[in-house]
Amino acid sequence: MITLTYRIETPGSIEALAAKIASDQSTGTFVALPGETEELKARVAARVLAIRHLPDATQPSLPGSGSGPFRRADVDIAFPFDAIGTDLSALRTIAIGGTYSIRGLSGIRVIDMKLPEQYRGAHPGPQFGVAGSRGLTGVEGRPIIGTIVKPALGLRPHETAAMVGELIEAGVDFIKDDEKLMSPAYSPLAERVKAIMPGILDHEQKTGKKVMYAFGISHADPDEMMRNHDLVLQAGGNCAVVNINSIGFGGMAFLRKRSGLVLHAHRNGWDILTRHPGLGMDFKVWQQFWRLLGVDQFQINGIGSKYWEPDDSFIRSFEAVTTPLFSSDDCALPVACSGQWGGQAPETYERTGRTVDLLYLCGGGIVSHPDGPGAGVRAVLQAWQAAVEGIALADYARDHIELARSIEKFGDGKAA
Amino acid sequence: MITLTYRIETPGSIEALAAKIASDQSTGTFVALPGETEELKARVAARVLAIRHLPDATQPSLPGSGSGPFRRADVDIAFPFDAIGTDLSALRTIAIGGTYSIRGLSGIRVIDMKLPEQYRGAHPGPQFGVAGSRGLTGVEGRPIIGTIVKPALGLRPHETAAMVGELIEAGVDFIKDDEKLMSPAYSPLAERVKAIMPGILDHEQKTGKKVMYAFGISHADPDEMMRNHDLVLQAGGNCAVVNINSIGFGGMAFLRKRSGLVLHAHRNGWDILTRHPGLGMDFKVWQQFWRLLGVDQFQINGIGSKYWEPDDSFIRSFEAVTTPLFSSDDCALPVACSGQWGGQAPETYERTGRTVDLLYLCGGGIVSHPDGPGAGVRAVLQAWQAAVEGIALADYARDHIELARSIEKFGDGKAA
Repeated sequence: MITLTYRIETPGSIEALAAKIASDQSTGTFVALPGETEELKARVAARVLAIRHLPDATQPSLPGSGSGPFRRADVDIAFPFDAIGTDLSALRTIAIGGTYSIRGLSGIRVIDMKLPEQYRGAHPGPQFGVAGSRGLTGVEGRPIIGTIVKPALGLRPHETAAMVGELIEAGVDFIKDDEKLMSPAYSPLAERVKAIMPGILDHEQKTGKKVMYAFGISHADPDEMMRNHDLVLQAGGNCAVVNINSIGFGGMAFLRKRSGLVLHAHRNGWDILTRHPGLGMDFKVWQQFWRLLGVDQFQINGIGSKYWEPDDSFIRSFEAVTTPLFSSDDCALPVACSGQWGGQAPETYERTGRTVDLLYLCGGGIVSHPDGPGAGVRAVLQAWQAAVEGIALADYARDHIELARSIEKFGDGKAA
Repeated sequence: MITLTYRIETPGSIEALAAKIASDQSTGTFVALPGETEELKARVAARVLAIRHLPDATQPSLPGSGSGPFRRADVDIAFPFDAIGTDLSALRTIAIGGTYSIRGLSGIRVIDMKLPEQYRGAHPGPQFGVAGSRGLTGVEGRPIIGTIVKPALGLRPHETAAMVGELIEAGVDFIKDDEKLMSPAYSPLAERVKAIMPGILDHEQKTGKKVMYAFGISHADPDEMMRNHDLVLQAGGNCAVVNINSIGFGGMAFLRKRSGLVLHAHRNGWDILTRHPGLGMDFKVWQQFWRLLGVDQFQINGIGSKYWEPDDSFIRSFEAVTTPLFSSDDCALPVACSGQWGGQAPETYERTGRTVDLLYLCGGGIVSHPDGPGAGVRAVLQAWQAAVEGIALADYARDHIELARSIEKFGDGKAA
C-alpha cells in the first residue's frame, strides 16, 4: 500500500473531493462504464483512509474558485501497491500528477508520501551519501566546508582555474560550479576540466588533501551527460552538480546507474512547486524520489538564505533528507547554502539536532572575506567550532580575528 | 539572443525586480566580487529589453507577500546565446529555474520564449508529427478519431484485448492506454502487447486499416523504457503514450533518439505549473521544450473538458503546438481530449482556424454510446462532418441517428 497525504481546499465538500481524488486516480471516470467490476475495483481502487479537517481559508489558493469559506483538510489516500509498482514515473503519474487537474478544488498540495516495504532495494539510492562524501574529502568531525566559483557565469576556463587555485590554497574541502554553469561556448566543460583538475591533483600530491570539485555536467540528453561525466571521471574528478529538475527522472536514473561520481543535486526550478503554501508539493515528498534515484548531496538552502525560503522550511528539508526511508544508507548529505558565511552556524547546529554531518556551502561568504578566501574559510571553521562548543560568535570572535572580520562585513546582512 | 517574457508581480519596484532577474540569472550575486569585469558582463549578462506595465493586483499571487498594491508587468529579458547554448537543460536552468526563487516578488509566470536561429536543427523534433500520424493511420481530410480503453486501470491483458477488439470493430483510428496504465503487476506491458497486437494486425490483414494503438511505455529508467519501446515495436505496434513530466527531459531525449514509434505525449502533472494564473508557466513555453525533444502528438484537453482548464486555454494550446518554431515539421499533432463526444466538434473547428488536423480523442463519448462503440464512432464522425459543413448538430442529427442518440445521452453534460 502506497499512502499519499494531500492538503486539499475546496468551496464544496471535502469528503466528496477526497473520494473524487481516490476515484479519478484509479478506476474512476465521469460515465458509468461496462467492465468496471467489483473484482477490478478491489485490484486497483484507491481508498480514503483518513480525513483531518483544518480551519477554513477565507481566500482560495487558486483565484477564481468561487466564494468561500474554503474548507481545508489533510487527506490520506492509499493506493494498492500492485496498481503502481515500484516505477517512480508510475508513482508520480498515478499518485500525484492527475490530482492537480481536478475541477472543484481551490487548492491542493501533496504533503506526505509513505512508500511500502516493496520499495526497499528497488532503486539504487545514493552511491556515496554522507559516508562517501566524508571518505573522499577526508573531513571528519566537522561540516565539510565548500564554496562556489564566483562570478556565477562568464569566466573562461583559465580564469576559473586561477580562482579555483586560490580557493584550494584557502583550504576549502569542496568547490562547485554554479548550477547555471554547464558547458557554454565561453567555458566548454572539457576545457574547464582540463584547466581545473591539474591544480586539484597537484594539491593532493603535495598535501594529501583532495579537494572535491563538483563540475556542472547536466545535459538534457543523457548520452551527452554521460560524456560529461566521463570527462570529469577520467581527469580524476570525483563529483558533479546535477540540475535534477532540468534533467528529470530519466536523466538521473540513467546517470546514476553508470556513475562513478558523487552526485550533488541542485533543485533549481523547484520553488514553483512549493512556494505557494496551498499548492504543489512539500520538499519532504519530492526529495524521496531523488534520493531513491541516487542523489548523494542535496542543496536545500540554509538559515537566512538570500531566497524566498523561510528558515523553518530549510529545517524541515534538513530533517527530510537525513531521515532514512528504509535505511541510513538512503540519506543524502544535506547541503546548507545561499547567503551562508558562518554567522548561521549556531542556529543551523542547534536546529538540526546538533549534527555536523552537512556540507556548509559559502559563496561570497568565503570569497569576499575582507582578508581573502583563506581568512574566509578560517572564519567559517571558527564559527562552526563556536557553534559546537556553544560559545556565542561575538565572544569566540574576540580571539579569532577572521571570524571577527567576517562579522564586521557580513554580520548585518547577507553574503552570497 | 534568447528572449524570455516574464509576467512579474511585486509590492516593490517592477524595474528593480526586472533588473534583479536579469542579474541573478547571469552574473549577479549579492556581494561585489573580484573578477566581475565589464568584458565578462558583456559575455553573459542578461538584459531587460522591455517592460510593459499592467494594472495592479489587489491580492498577491503568493500569499504573505506584504501589502499592496501589487504592481504587475510583462518583462522581456534577453540572454546572450553563448551564455546558454542549445542544451535544453541549460536553457531551463538559466532562463527559468532560478527566477522562481527570487525574494520580493509576489508572483512570476513565464509567458513567452523566443529561441534564436541557432536552435534550428539543434534538436531532433517530432519524428512523425502530423504527416506521419496521417500516413500511419491512413486518415486524410478529417480528424483522426481516437478512444481510450476504459476503465482506466484494473483490466487484465485479456480483458483489455477483448475491449480493444470491440473498439477496432467500431472503426476507430486510434486507441490508447490510459496514461496511468504503464506496466503494473495485473497488466505487465509485455503481456498486454501480446494480447492486443494480434487483433490489430489481424484487422489490418483483413481490411487494410491499421489501428494505431498507443501503449503506455513510460518508465523512470530510460533503459527500461527502451525495453518497453522495443516490445511494442517488435510486436508490430507503432505508437506509445509517454508521460513527459514523469520521465523528464532526459527520458524523452533518450527515447526519441532511439525511437521507431509515434510518441504521444501526456502532460499529467503539468497543471500545477500553470493553473494559478500569476505563477508558473504558460503551456506556450513548456510545449516548445517537448516539441524540440520530439513529441509527435500532444494531448491538450479540449472544449468543455472535464478538468479545470478553461476553453480559452485549450484554444491557446492548440495554436501553440501548431505554430512552427522553425518549420512546420516541428509542429505536433494536437490531441483534443477529456470529455469529448462530438458535441464539441463545431466549436473546436471554428476556434482552431477551421482545421481538421487533429486527433480527436473520446473515451466514454465513444465507449458509452447507448448503441455501442460503433455507433459512438459514427456519431463523432457525423459531428465533425456537420462542423465542417457548418450545419448545426441538432439539424444534422435529424437524419443521423447515431449523432441524435449521442446528443440525447451526452448533450446536457459531459462524457469521459
